[in-house]
Amino acid sequence: MDMKIILASGSPRRRELLNQIGLDYEVMVSEAAEVTQATEPAEICRELACLKARDVAATLAREASEKTGEDGARKGHTLVIGSDTIVAADGRILGKPADREDARRMLRLISGREHQVYTGVAAVEMDGGEIVSETSFTDATDVYVSQLTEADIGWYLSTGEPFDKAGAYGIQGYFARFVEKIDGDYNTVVGLPVGRLWRDIIRHYK
Amino acid sequence: MDMKIILASGSPRRRELLNQIGLDYEVMVSEAAEVTQATEPAEICRELACLKARDVAATLAREASEKTGEDGARKGHTLVIGSDTIVAADGRILGKPADREDARRMLRLISGREHQVYTGVAAVEMDGGEIVSETSFTDATDVYVSQLTEADIGWYLSTGEPFDKAGAYGIQGYFARFVEKIDGDYNTVVGLPVGRLWRDIIRHYK
Repeated sequence: MDMKIILASGSPRRRELLNQIGLDYEVMVSEAAEVTQATEPAEICRELACLKARDVAATLAREASEKTGEDGARKGHTLVIGSDTIVAADGRILGKPADREDARRMLRLISGREHQVYTGVAAVEMDGGEIVSETSFTDATDVYVSQLTEADIGWYLSTGEPFDKAGAYGIQGYFARFVEKIDGDYNTVVGLPVGRLWRDIIRHYK
Repeated sequence: MDMKIILASGSPRRRELLNQIGLDYEVMVSEAAEVTQATEPAEICRELACLKARDVAATLAREASEKTGEDGARKGHTLVIGSDTIVAADGRILGKPADREDARRMLRLISGREHQVYTGVAAVEMDGGEIVSETSFTDATDVYVSQLTEADIGWYLSTGEPFDKAGAYGIQGYFARFVEKIDGDYNTVVGLPVGRLWRDIIRHYK
């Protein structure tokens, strides 16, 4: 099947992962407000992934209805992929740090122990301008961080890497020197579980 | 301590990992013959890592002795890092594929199950032209590959990625779509366990 893929995320790391596994896609960033009633990390990120994918799908549907009958209407199947990543320790969510002290607090919290990274994925399938199905899941990976000294934390803050990242670290960056091991899909930690995305969703359309 | 790091490997993936964790280093590729009496994968790759690091250290020592008394002699501490990676399934070693059919055989072998990736690391510490200590370890990671169809294998062979890689795959490449999970350090699979290298060795010199 000739399936067009649209990534409903502006994250460069997610784009890189789709490039890495050799998929062609377009990017349309969702403008949806990230609001959910869910309380568990696994459920929150799955719902937010759905919100993002549905928002972009709605935009596509609107575009299609405006162009009904014209040659410009989007033909064929489209798969809109939304994704959201949450870092949690003891079930408490660690978002992007508000400032340097907040980042320091998070790094102290994840030092010398394991925590979880959850990435929710949603795929909305469209045929022309119609939504025909929606699939979603959450994948979770345990990350074991080595004992960080105050000097380690000071150095890591000085790299500037923590400040735009949930949990105040990037496993694909300098922080790799502090990671002992993971149990799960590495790419779930990076921001998109491309193994399960391929296995459970995309391969069925190819 | 002002410690100079020399990577005794020409592998671009190992270089990228040292860059990623923010280390300055030079590259001097070992010319040593990769011969060992060891029979277990974990021991083989540790020994080969030692061979590579010692070979480069011997070159440095020779250079230093030729320059004794001159300003050009290498002053201060140097850490020479050697590394070797082995892929094994059921204790049987999967090297770089000889050809397309050999790659196909390996991919069928790792399909739908776990296998192990071992990376041996050796660090030879030098003071001036003298070797003062040697440390080595092997880190192992389990990799769980999803069930591959003949079409998957045919597609993956067509990317050209398998042919220069032990086990006929690169986890940091297209093959990520076929990886279910790992248990261990991701970078051990890529080719250099930078977490343990930092934790057990380099941090003690910084």
